[in-house]
Amino acid sequence: MSLIAVGTMAFDDIETPFGKSDRIIGGSATYIAWSASNFIRPVRQISVIGGDFPTSELDALAERGVDLAGVQVKKNERSFFWAGRYHLDMNTRDTLDTQLNVLGDFKPTVPESYQGSEFLILGNLMPSLQLDVIRQLRHRPDLIVLDTMNFWMETAMPDLELVLKEVDVLMINDSEARQLSAQFSLVKAAREIMAMGPEYLVIKKGEHGALLFHKDQVFYAPALPLEDVFDPTGAGDTFAGGFIGHLARTKDISFENMKTAIIVGSAMASFCVEKFGTTRLKELKEADINARIKQFVDLVNFDISLV
Amino acid sequence: MSLIAVGTMAFDDIETPFGKSDRIIGGSATYIAWSASNFIRPVRQISVIGGDFPTSELDALAERGVDLAGVQVKKNERSFFWAGRYHLDMNTRDTLDTQLNVLGDFKPTVPESYQGSEFLILGNLMPSLQLDVIRQLRHRPDLIVLDTMNFWMETAMPDLELVLKEVDVLMINDSEARQLSAQFSLVKAAREIMAMGPEYLVIKKGEHGALLFHKDQVFYAPALPLEDVFDPTGAGDTFAGGFIGHLARTKDISFENMKTAIIVGSAMASFCVEKFGTTRLKELKEADINARIKQFVDLVNFDISLV
Repeated sequence: MSLIAVGTMAFDDIETPFGKSDRIIGGSATYIAWSASNFIRPVRQISVIGGDFPTSELDALAERGVDLAGVQVKKNERSFFWAGRYHLDMNTRDTLDTQLNVLGDFKPTVPESYQGSEFLILGNLMPSLQLDVIRQLRHRPDLIVLDTMNFWMETAMPDLELVLKEVDVLMINDSEARQLSAQFSLVKAAREIMAMGPEYLVIKKGEHGALLFHKDQVFYAPALPLEDVFDPTGAGDTFAGGFIGHLARTKDISFENMKTAIIVGSAMASFCVEKFGTTRLKELKEADINARIKQFVDLVNFDISLV
Repeated sequence: MSLIAVGTMAFDDIETPFGKSDRIIGGSATYIAWSASNFIRPVRQISVIGGDFPTSELDALAERGVDLAGVQVKKNERSFFWAGRYHLDMNTRDTLDTQLNVLGDFKPTVPESYQGSEFLILGNLMPSLQLDVIRQLRHRPDLIVLDTMNFWMETAMPDLELVLKEVDVLMINDSEARQLSAQFSLVKAAREIMAMGPEYLVIKKGEHGALLFHKDQVFYAPALPLEDVFDPTGAGDTFAGGFIGHLARTKDISFENMKTAIIVGSAMASFCVEKFGTTRLKELKEADINARIKQFVDLVNFDISLV
């Protein structure tokens, strides 16, 4: 199986109640790649960077099995930059600065070698660019997963509506689901949003876990209660990478297997927040991931025969 | 097995975004009794009411298998009264009025016929009265469950500390756990609180489910995503009643069985919020409860063999 991952590769400045990072590597496609590559290789990356993006980071990704043929390098420009500050609850944050730089006039191009991929994940990016990638694919992938955010609901809703009609799975957080549907009840919100296109909806609730909706069915995956959350940046992308990585590895896009994929994504996200940026993801071994998934099993498992 | 339930029997005025109740029957012991009596009878009630408390309500409880020998009736006084207004999120509320009435000089008395009970649940009430009940019992129950609230942390902390040393399970919500421990991380909060006495801690998170802590172990029970929450009043007491009702019925106070008890409590609470006050609880049949528990199994169950 083959997977295309689309999104940003960027620099982030992050402040949390625990400390402040310098300019560190971030971006939706970066986190997705570090996460998904634990399950499937190559991850066929589509993104854009400036001449300031460190070669060592590209080498590390390539060594990890990330195909960078679709990553445009604009030597004389600067990479996308985001600065943000998290509140004490770590579920809310303020954007302090956004510099589009190379992203300003980005035109993604799908390399010929990427054609025929069975899985596509569209990380958070302008909806028009996400749509552009879908339209360049001659073979419609078996599964298209879309991540987006409230900013695009406010500034690019017509484009977002078009993309929603083209995807199978939408991933957003609870406040975004409420905004997109104008419904407070997440059950009602899910119904409205699935009517916009995606057959599956994942609603991420941070420390409160994630919900997977499909038709009249619902699955609730918990988040692992953690001693400390150092930096939530990239947790959603890491979740998405684990989710689609598991599906692509197992070649099974049933609702049943999506439940397991949500658990895998939750396990990956629980690592991401333990250190700043991609630090923890880079350290991970297969045994770490398996042990963490086992913790999730223990976390939710109960003996129904005792009822 | 036998169960003693201690708490208030009261009148409530409730406002929610969906409507306003008139003066309806409420109180922690009322909800606990309606919930626990689905699993174990009799429920041996300890409470106090005024002459204004309807005989029909007492008859309904008695018919349900609730022993009212421990309910003091002060004919010439009025029952405890609470009025509150819920916010749109249904997780937060303002208290509009509190009239202690009969509760002002309440001295609980354990009837001789209640001595030797194996299970005790102390619903939300002044900690000094909760302690008083424990001290009247000649045989220490096999399991003591305590519910309390932030109000007592602010006004009766020395008494609350004494009760905490005497109980096995404490049930509080997430903001109360943070207040009691002065820790933001619920994992750290749980460790601090268990050091105060209770070996088991249940942290209720409303629509986000509930956590059960014991030593280094943790269990996460989801809440059922609902179309609408009409009235959250009594949901916590109903949860507590289902929890201890299941434990008393199965005569098994292991951590494993407490996980199942949390699911049973969550199922009961999911009914409670569907209508105002105790309305929905009074309608429930065994088949309704079993079907709802089955929904919880479907909600969290995933196939680990797919990992």
